[in-house]
Amino acid sequence: MSHYQHILIAADFSDHNKQVCEQAREIAQRYQTRLSICHIIEDFPITDFAYEPMISVDLGMRDAMLESGKKHIAQLASGLDIPSDNQWVEFGNPNHDIVRLAQENNVDLIVTGSHGRHGIQLLLGSTANAILHHAHCDVLAVRLQKS
Amino acid sequence: MSHYQHILIAADFSDHNKQVCEQAREIAQRYQTRLSICHIIEDFPITDFAYEPMISVDLGMRDAMLESGKKHIAQLASGLDIPSDNQWVEFGNPNHDIVRLAQENNVDLIVTGSHGRHGIQLLLGSTANAILHHAHCDVLAVRLQKS
Repeated sequence: MSHYQHILIAADFSDHNKQVCEQAREIAQRYQTRLSICHIIEDFPITDFAYEPMISVDLGMRDAMLESGKKHIAQLASGLDIPSDNQWVEFGNPNHDIVRLAQENNVDLIVTGSHGRHGIQLLLGSTANAILHHAHCDVLAVRLQKS
Repeated sequence: MSHYQHILIAADFSDHNKQVCEQAREIAQRYQTRLSICHIIEDFPITDFAYEPMISVDLGMRDAMLESGKKHIAQLASGLDIPSDNQWVEFGNPNHDIVRLAQENNVDLIVTGSHGRHGIQLLLGSTANAILHHAHCDVLAVRLQKS
């Protein structure tokens, strides 16, 4: 299992995303692997019956978010020569759905960003944590440098 | 920062250590990097005054553990062509001292094993977690397969 064949970038659209993509591309080139990219949009309830009068989420907003995510990923993917079949944008729980996508597509290395453990960064780093524990494959956490 | 130049294996002497070493060697070869290996022996107090009558830890035992660790690492290192100058065995706190060693030696990728999050494996995985959050460089967590 030491020769990677399919690398998945878990993109989060932060300013540092470029670092993650560059590192993944570099490894994909050195290993001559297939490269894919995914982005999971944190899911939210369309309607919460308890708070219905307060929450009014247009279904169109959901579609707009998905479209926007797909455009963003397509832009990143074009710079990495990733074909559209290897771009996945979905609503879900990033902590679980990145791992699920990896498993479904025989990914053997997930590349994601890792933040330090101070303040807000601790929260941002939790997806990397979850991937680390749940993934059935190797995980490369790219240390995001402060710009 | 996308070209790795110095990779550090954080070895824990578990049965799965070979997987971590093989993956690290593979990357080191593909990137043509320097490869180092370290093992931190969990530190313990020589004497606990509260329990002195019950605990009698011979200083010689500490030396023996260090020697044993060094022998083990030397054995692993010889299979990886790692010179003695790049083998570090120390007493300390694995969660912090692996990261410290990496920083002191300009390591840009730490390779360590990651366990699932069930039962005892959750505890074993905590070093990978700590490295992920504290490291100033990238971290590759090699998913340890049940043998």
